[in-house]
Amino acid sequence: MSRPDGRAADELRPLSFQRDFTEMAEGSVLVSFGNTRVLCTASIDDDVPRWMRNSGKGWVTAEYSMLPGASPERISREAAKGKQSGRTVEIQRLIARSLRAACDMKVLGERQVTVDCDVLQADGGTRTASICGGFVALHDALQRLVIAGELAANPLHSFCSAISVGIVDGTAVLDLPYIEDSTAEVDMNVVMLRSVGANGQPEGEARFVEVQGTAEGMAFSRSQLDTLVGLAEGGLLTISDAQAAVIAEPPAPRPAQR
Amino acid sequence: MSRPDGRAADELRPLSFQRDFTEMAEGSVLVSFGNTRVLCTASIDDDVPRWMRNSGKGWVTAEYSMLPGASPERISREAAKGKQSGRTVEIQRLIARSLRAACDMKVLGERQVTVDCDVLQADGGTRTASICGGFVALHDALQRLVIAGELAANPLHSFCSAISVGIVDGTAVLDLPYIEDSTAEVDMNVVMLRSVGANGQPEGEARFVEVQGTAEGMAFSRSQLDTLVGLAEGGLLTISDAQAAVIAEPPAPRPAQR
Amino acid sequence: MSRPDGRAADELRPLSFQRDFTEMAEGSVLVSFGNTRVLCTASIDDDVPRWMRNSGKGWVTAEYSMLPGASPERISREAAKGKQSGRTVEIQRLIARSLRAACDMKVLGERQVTVDCDVLQADGGTRTASICGGFVALHDALQRLVIAGELAANPLHSFCSAISVGIVDGTAVLDLPYIEDSTAEVDMNVVMLRSVGANGQPEGEARFVEVQGTAEGMAFSRSQLDTLVGLAEGGLLTISDAQAAVIAEPPAPRPAQR
Amino acid sequence: MSRPDGRAADELRPLSFQRDFTEMAEGSVLVSFGNTRVLCTASIDDDVPRWMRNSGKGWVTAEYSMLPGASPERISREAAKGKQSGRTVEIQRLIARSLRAACDMKVLGERQVTVDCDVLQADGGTRTASICGGFVALHDALQRLVIAGELAANPLHSFCSAISVGIVDGTAVLDLPYIEDSTAEVDMNVVMLRSVGANGQPEGEARFVEVQGTAEGMAFSRSQLDTLVGLAEGGLLTISDAQAAVIAEPPAPRPAQR
Amino acid sequence: MSRPDGRAADELRPLSFQRDFTEMAEGSVLVSFGNTRVLCTASIDDDVPRWMRNSGKGWVTAEYSMLPGASPERISREAAKGKQSGRTVEIQRLIARSLRAACDMKVLGERQVTVDCDVLQADGGTRTASICGGFVALHDALQRLVIAGELAANPLHSFCSAISVGIVDGTAVLDLPYIEDSTAEVDMNVVMLRSVGANGQPEGEARFVEVQGTAEGMAFSRSQLDTLVGLAEGGLLTISDAQAAVIAEPPAPRPAQR
Amino acid sequence: MSRPDGRAADELRPLSFQRDFTEMAEGSVLVSFGNTRVLCTASIDDDVPRWMRNSGKGWVTAEYSMLPGASPERISREAAKGKQSGRTVEIQRLIARSLRAACDMKVLGERQVTVDCDVLQADGGTRTASICGGFVALHDALQRLVIAGELAANPLHSFCSAISVGIVDGTAVLDLPYIEDSTAEVDMNVVMLRSVGANGQPEGEARFVEVQGTAEGMAFSRSQLDTLVGLAEGGLLTISDAQAAVIAEPPAPRPAQR
Repeated sequence: MSRPDGRAADELRPLSFQRDFTEMAEGSVLVSFGNTRVLCTASIDDDVPRWMRNSGKGWVTAEYSMLPGASPERISREAAKGKQSGRTVEIQRLIARSLRAACDMKVLGERQVTVDCDVLQADGGTRTASICGGFVALHDALQRLVIAGELAANPLHSFCSAISVGIVDGTAVLDLPYIEDSTAEVDMNVVMLRSVGANGQPEGEARFVEVQGTAEGMAFSRSQLDTLVGLAEGGLLTISDAQAAVIAEPPAPRPAQR
Repeated sequence: MSRPDGRAADELRPLSFQRDFTEMAEGSVLVSFGNTRVLCTASIDDDVPRWMRNSGKGWVTAEYSMLPGASPERISREAAKGKQSGRTVEIQRLIARSLRAACDMKVLGERQVTVDCDVLQADGGTRTASICGGFVALHDALQRLVIAGELAANPLHSFCSAISVGIVDGTAVLDLPYIEDSTAEVDMNVVMLRSVGANGQPEGEARFVEVQGTAEGMAFSRSQLDTLVGLAEGGLLTISDAQAAVIAEPPAPRPAQR
Repeated sequence: MSRPDGRAADELRPLSFQRDFTEMAEGSVLVSFGNTRVLCTASIDDDVPRWMRNSGKGWVTAEYSMLPGASPERISREAAKGKQSGRTVEIQRLIARSLRAACDMKVLGERQVTVDCDVLQADGGTRTASICGGFVALHDALQRLVIAGELAANPLHSFCSAISVGIVDGTAVLDLPYIEDSTAEVDMNVVMLRSVGANGQPEGEARFVEVQGTAEGMAFSRSQLDTLVGLAEGGLLTISDAQAAVIAEPPAPRPAQR
Repeated sequence: MSRPDGRAADELRPLSFQRDFTEMAEGSVLVSFGNTRVLCTASIDDDVPRWMRNSGKGWVTAEYSMLPGASPERISREAAKGKQSGRTVEIQRLIARSLRAACDMKVLGERQVTVDCDVLQADGGTRTASICGGFVALHDALQRLVIAGELAANPLHSFCSAISVGIVDGTAVLDLPYIEDSTAEVDMNVVMLRSVGANGQPEGEARFVEVQGTAEGMAFSRSQLDTLVGLAEGGLLTISDAQAAVIAEPPAPRPAQR
Repeated sequence: MSRPDGRAADELRPLSFQRDFTEMAEGSVLVSFGNTRVLCTASIDDDVPRWMRNSGKGWVTAEYSMLPGASPERISREAAKGKQSGRTVEIQRLIARSLRAACDMKVLGERQVTVDCDVLQADGGTRTASICGGFVALHDALQRLVIAGELAANPLHSFCSAISVGIVDGTAVLDLPYIEDSTAEVDMNVVMLRSVGANGQPEGEARFVEVQGTAEGMAFSRSQLDTLVGLAEGGLLTISDAQAAVIAEPPAPRPAQR
Repeated sequence: MSRPDGRAADELRPLSFQRDFTEMAEGSVLVSFGNTRVLCTASIDDDVPRWMRNSGKGWVTAEYSMLPGASPERISREAAKGKQSGRTVEIQRLIARSLRAACDMKVLGERQVTVDCDVLQADGGTRTASICGGFVALHDALQRLVIAGELAANPLHSFCSAISVGIVDGTAVLDLPYIEDSTAEVDMNVVMLRSVGANGQPEGEARFVEVQGTAEGMAFSRSQLDTLVGLAEGGLLTISDAQAAVIAEPPAPRPAQR
């Protein structure tokens, strides 16, 4: 089988993290996986939800949205409909759970960070791109607190990356664009952690925090599941290396804000 | 490790399907896994959503709710809050996707079946119990159409069953009650299909339609994932056998309705 | 005139109170009037609404819902519509007012009890069944506080029971099932109190707390109103005796909860 | 006992119907019972709700609202809260049911009339005043159709009037202002029909369409109920005579509208 | 060009302020511009929104609504739709901003005044009539606080008046009724302040606080804009004189309230 | 007075239109005025709202939103709150009215174009930037229809541009960033049309379609109003020239879409 864009089955789309694409939020990254582009910003609130006060711990949450013009067929604006769709709610819960798994809430202290993932252009894999970009935005926002002396250390103990895998026409493939995603028999999203080593680089084995596989028309066997997770693992190692390369450099100081 | 209720790690809680617990909806089952009890009803609408008209195909959807008194701490009623929670939306999407995977929509024809899963008592595993009970309610509603001559054959080509597995104190366990679920390091829901054989009994190998694993505090390795899926598979074979035993008998005729 | 189910005009449907049908809420009763079945649970909150704090008084509130599968034609789920219907709101206000009339709020102290009435199967008279069953659930929840030493006495000074009466084909009848209710010319709900005597049994004359009569197609005269209220009174004495028989026995101790 | 405003127990407050207080809607009446003032308008739509099409019958519905400045303590605007209160919903259902009981839907034909009752000033009895004023507005709107030759006869077969009665300090009183209403032990609303005779005047005996009695702190006996209904009946005869006096004169022609 | 109602291009419709049309709110005015009639009430709350506490300053806000029967074609009730329209929101923001511009918030102190503008009859210019009437209601509510000794001086430093102007068939006209408004090429609302002099009368030059001009089909030039503003200014001087005439007399004492 | 960023009072911020910043919607422009950046997309729907069907005319509408991370202090997501703010509604109504004024709806035919303006970064003037960028996105979407032969000519008869002006510290200034906007005594938005000449360049005099001036603390005189409009006019001529320069080149063909 050849893929529509000519990639090998285990090959990622071109991937980039454009740091500080905007400059208002404490962290801001425009992440691209091929034509999928998501603007991820991290905003820090020096307060936590009421039920966490006096716990000494912080919280990380996430919100997700598709811009109406992100797709060839316009997507109705949820603010206008007055309601987030079930899909949106599911995705933002996944993003938040994934990022929280990478963060030491005691080191964070009583602060809440909101990671907003707004999809500027959608071509498959928007939720996993949001996690990958959201991680870098979250890192930068927290690192700026470290630089400012407000945090002793960056609370992120692990890299957090995510990717989709699936079975298309009977073949397991990595990082599906819309055209593959819409015809896949099995669709799976995998989120992985890798520890941040002493030198700031990933170290140790990969561990999973989310595995969400859904059959669309063809159920899958245990060995297919294993193949898919293995395929994901390969892509995720590449992604976490790319995240590490970006954050090896500290985030640039922000101009004095308004 | 011993489990709070003394079960073996790979042992299900006492399981029962109380058929026709109510008699108004076309299918009705009260399913119990230990103290978890869910009333599942299947209602048939001789119409499909607008976007499916003239497709010759049917649709299966699901709704889920916890009764406010289902838990020791009262759960706010979503109708009163005017909004379903993210958790509810996620669960009912899972139930619906799972049941649809077992159903041949062309055989169903242009009808919509709504499977309502209302949790009367919650002690862990309510979403997987809903799928198991919802399958039987859906079967009975459709079988009554077969008996009435409105359908040539039951559109369900496979049994659909679901169970939770998890890692508690480092041990993989099957079918977690609330007390285990609330402290599990890893929590996974697995949904399986088995073909309905010529004799109405399950046959052939198990295939998966949903695998949703989430780390809560401890990420998991590929081999742990495999162990958990294997543990689920064992329980699911037992559950589908129990479903098969129930439906071996055709549903009782309904009294003439109001 | 003969009634569809062969009852005499002043005869109740078979009536039962299944105590502790569920075991999570502090009080739980499955009440049946013929095919009408309502699960009533009472949950205690050791706090009162803000406007009642420091008043030394408690509060009783109620919520009501029909399960979607409770009726032959599926009822849309209000949580999914994002709104309770006018009918629902009216009914839960009636249930709450009725139960409050039986309760001494100073004896209750600063606690709020929520009585949830979820209709599992609907065949007429769901609101009056909810009041009857809700009373027993409320009693049990409060009595368990007495047993636990948290209340000096049960704050319920009166039995509270309710029934529907109506005029069908010109005849006044008691306890209408759906088939009668849908064609009744006059429809009336009556809620009655009887004092709890020293021996825990009802004593003294019946007193009314709610009389809600509505003409559906045929207005009624003052003497018809009187006849209907008299008919209701007879049924209500039987119901309150049945409630008294149930609560003559103290509620069973609950297993230690999760 | 003497009443705060010096009235006898069976005396109504000063009552007036100011016809065509506004001139846009097809019927418009400002009704006053003492300080309670409600603007009632009736608007005709030459269409019926979808479920009534091709039935040959019409429909009458009602909406009710309190203006925020209608009371000494400002009432939150329901449009701003995005939700009608339970009280509002209950009241507008009562108004609509009452007016429908007076109207022959076949004579009305496939039209919908909406009666809007907006309380400009609230001093007790706003729902019963709304019914009384709404009846006159509805009459005028329909009579203008008769005058225009669009209806053969006015579909209102009966006068419809309503009043509150209650027990205050142990005494049954008629037409309670807020100061009495807020301390009444029993509160009852009664809606009555009287046939429109050949001469357009009320004739025949009074018949009831709604009796809604609620104990507030003191339950009531069957004989008290009878006393209250009798007291209401006296007031209602006076009110329907006043309505008849107003509509004895046909409504003035409307200036050509924009 | 002659206007439909025969007025000169720079002539206002008959204008009146009916003070204390209702008597519950602290200030109440029924304002009329021709057939446009708006009931404006001002209600005082001895608290401010949370974000203003301890600022020593007060706040003035406004709400606006059209009664459903205010127009020949019934207007859907926003409370029933569960949402205020964009038009409503825009108008009430304009009213509030305009009235706040006339008020010294430090003199007001930590109180919030809500000015409710409910349109009883709509014939063009409802938002500007609301501002004119709202000003008088606000004045009276505040003046009653002065009379009661709760305020040292009335916080209104300026008269606030508003009017619409427009270009109809190429001619600039003042105070457009619906029939002109619906065909105007340009539509403009102008809000003006004039200082309250030592004698309580307007003094000094007019100043603008809002100029909102919108082309409907024909864009306008700078000189047309200037002509329209000049036309508005003339009308506004007349209106503010009328407001001054009303408030020259102090508001009548209120009867002791319930 | 010197401005914080050193500009002359009548000088615009650096302005750019980044065409086809995304490639899914039919038109897409990232517009920048200094740090203010808005992504404008235009999506074409080959249908019109029901009330316009069979009118032979098209419609242009607009939606506006601020991304939560667009500002130093995170802005709550309206989709999560379930409601668009009054400010949002006002702004999107302004954008839509302005763009409609430039478009010949008969030439457009029965199509609806939705212009979405999503603010990626907010530093004052987001609504006027949205109009300027939205015009170019709308142009490109329509021009692609012309190129595809679906439209005979581009329905935009005029350039549409917008800018803010204000009085800061007593001085009239053009194009206010947040730091000026937040302290301005007068704030005004001006929207202007200029005809599209035969060569596609602006020609003829400027005409206004919206002038919205609001005093914030200091009312303004007629001559100040005139000064502000003149200042805006200068800036708007520059902006429309810039728009003309962009669209002088036809939009690039789109890659075949998914």
